[in-house]
Amino acid sequence: MNQEQSLPPELTDFPAVAKVPVQWGDMDSFKHVNNIIYLRWFETARVRYLEVSGLNPIMDRTGCGPILASVHCNYRKQLRYPDDVLIGARMIKLGGTSMKVEHVIYSVSQQAVVADGESGVVYFDYANQRPVAIPDEVRSLISLCEGRDL
Amino acid sequence: MNQEQSLPPELTDFPAVAKVPVQWGDMDSFKHVNNIIYLRWFETARVRYLEVSGLNPIMDRTGCGPILASVHCNYRKQLRYPDDVLIGARMIKLGGTSMKVEHVIYSVSQQAVVADGESGVVYFDYANQRPVAIPDEVRSLISLCEGRDL
Amino acid sequence: MNQEQSLPPELTDFPAVAKVPVQWGDMDSFKHVNNIIYLRWFETARVRYLEVSGLNPIMDRTGCGPILASVHCNYRKQLRYPDDVLIGARMIKLGGTSMKVEHVIYSVSQQAVVADGESGVVYFDYANQRPVAIPDEVRSLISLCEGRDL
Amino acid sequence: MNQEQSLPPELTDFPAVAKVPVQWGDMDSFKHVNNIIYLRWFETARVRYLEVSGLNPIMDRTGCGPILASVHCNYRKQLRYPDDVLIGARMIKLGGTSMKVEHVIYSVSQQAVVADGESGVVYFDYANQRPVAIPDEVRSLISLCEGRDL
Repeated sequence: MNQEQSLPPELTDFPAVAKVPVQWGDMDSFKHVNNIIYLRWFETARVRYLEVSGLNPIMDRTGCGPILASVHCNYRKQLRYPDDVLIGARMIKLGGTSMKVEHVIYSVSQQAVVADGESGVVYFDYANQRPVAIPDEVRSLISLCEGRDL
Repeated sequence: MNQEQSLPPELTDFPAVAKVPVQWGDMDSFKHVNNIIYLRWFETARVRYLEVSGLNPIMDRTGCGPILASVHCNYRKQLRYPDDVLIGARMIKLGGTSMKVEHVIYSVSQQAVVADGESGVVYFDYANQRPVAIPDEVRSLISLCEGRDL
Repeated sequence: MNQEQSLPPELTDFPAVAKVPVQWGDMDSFKHVNNIIYLRWFETARVRYLEVSGLNPIMDRTGCGPILASVHCNYRKQLRYPDDVLIGARMIKLGGTSMKVEHVIYSVSQQAVVADGESGVVYFDYANQRPVAIPDEVRSLISLCEGRDL
Repeated sequence: MNQEQSLPPELTDFPAVAKVPVQWGDMDSFKHVNNIIYLRWFETARVRYLEVSGLNPIMDRTGCGPILASVHCNYRKQLRYPDDVLIGARMIKLGGTSMKVEHVIYSVSQQAVVADGESGVVYFDYANQRPVAIPDEVRSLISLCEGRDL
């Protein structure tokens, strides 16, 4: 989304925010948004993070990039169509070969956080199919994006 | 979407238009948006049509409403993330118990129609699980919505 | 699926048949399987067709292969969890650069066809992103697979 | 799946096991099964658990039942089409109003666990939209299903 739009306070610390409308078909037999849709939105926010941090060109050049190792989601409130959600992603930890991304999902109609969670990501050499050390240029871009050393 | 935003000419004849961002996860192994996502978007536009035409309260009151009988989609151009699509729905035929909805999907980045198609819909009594005649008040609302008799 | 299992008569003319369980999450707010899931199953049967006909090695070698141009689905009966579906695909027409695949979806619990339809497919050069003539070896494999000239 | 089929040792402690084929369309641009599909399978195994434990009739009678509060998934190996997965669910903790379900996903072609995780579930009164204490008859059925007191 256009970052110049005003964001609710719950999202101001997130460098990457995506805005997605809830689609009717996102709901399941309980007439609320199905649990896996929240994970689709986490993914959308992770991909947005790669864009706003400037990591994409490095991944294209090196053939290395993040692969998802784990995901955790806390479902705090049910969601229903129609609504729009804002999904945030921010880096909260950088290890040797792994990183941790924090997520939040905010409902525009409820004006509240409806879910939060974390993605564990491993820096991965796709050609050789194994984890590799996170390069310094990646660390720099992430710290720049977050506005603090990680 | 807010209908006051200016629409491309390809969509101006559609009373119902939904705007949805392409999500990265909408793409498949061919690195283009998977074919079933287009049908999700058709559905989103059909649901939008029920809202803008004012049909929803009648469905809630009577327990009768549209059920999908057939769908057709022509895939004209491939789509990739990132992009936004506008999806239109308009009624093109009203029969005794059935109706035909026309769809178009427009890519904002390509500034072109990327798919079109039709949904065949039957007016359905969900409690008794059988088709019923489309009531006059439904016909009136649809004609009003389309700006012409159908 | 193992083709040696006995198939219902509705599927015996289909060289490619896939068996898939209905998952609870395939259902939408109407507590029936959502319309786009049927199209996912059509796709699964098309991919199965590429395997049983022996077309996959040609596609790998030439970089050319089918791309979906259109899809049509007739929803004949509603489906609910739990159930298993058999999805058939057979070639019904071979043109210069295009082909037509017929589909049927059969519910094991209802012992009935719940949907049928067609996929329009174009033979496509993915590197150059344009349709190409269907090669003779592809025509031969398809005729062999169908047991008749097409 | 038919529990009389022999299960790999990794799944023998799971009272509920579902078998699902990987569909081609489950894969994303990385040509591996997309992360959210694993969560769809967790859900499928949870629903299977409700069936094998005999909890469904209680839920139908009381209008109370599990709602997902959190989910965690560890992605251990990539999956590709074609393959079949076995998904297990077992109860590992029963609290006052909440329970914890353990999951494992096993690839038949790789003969290995490709993911594991947990679902946090709250016993929920859907009519009044609030958590309620897990009834004794539910506790008994779960202990019976697991073959031990929980």
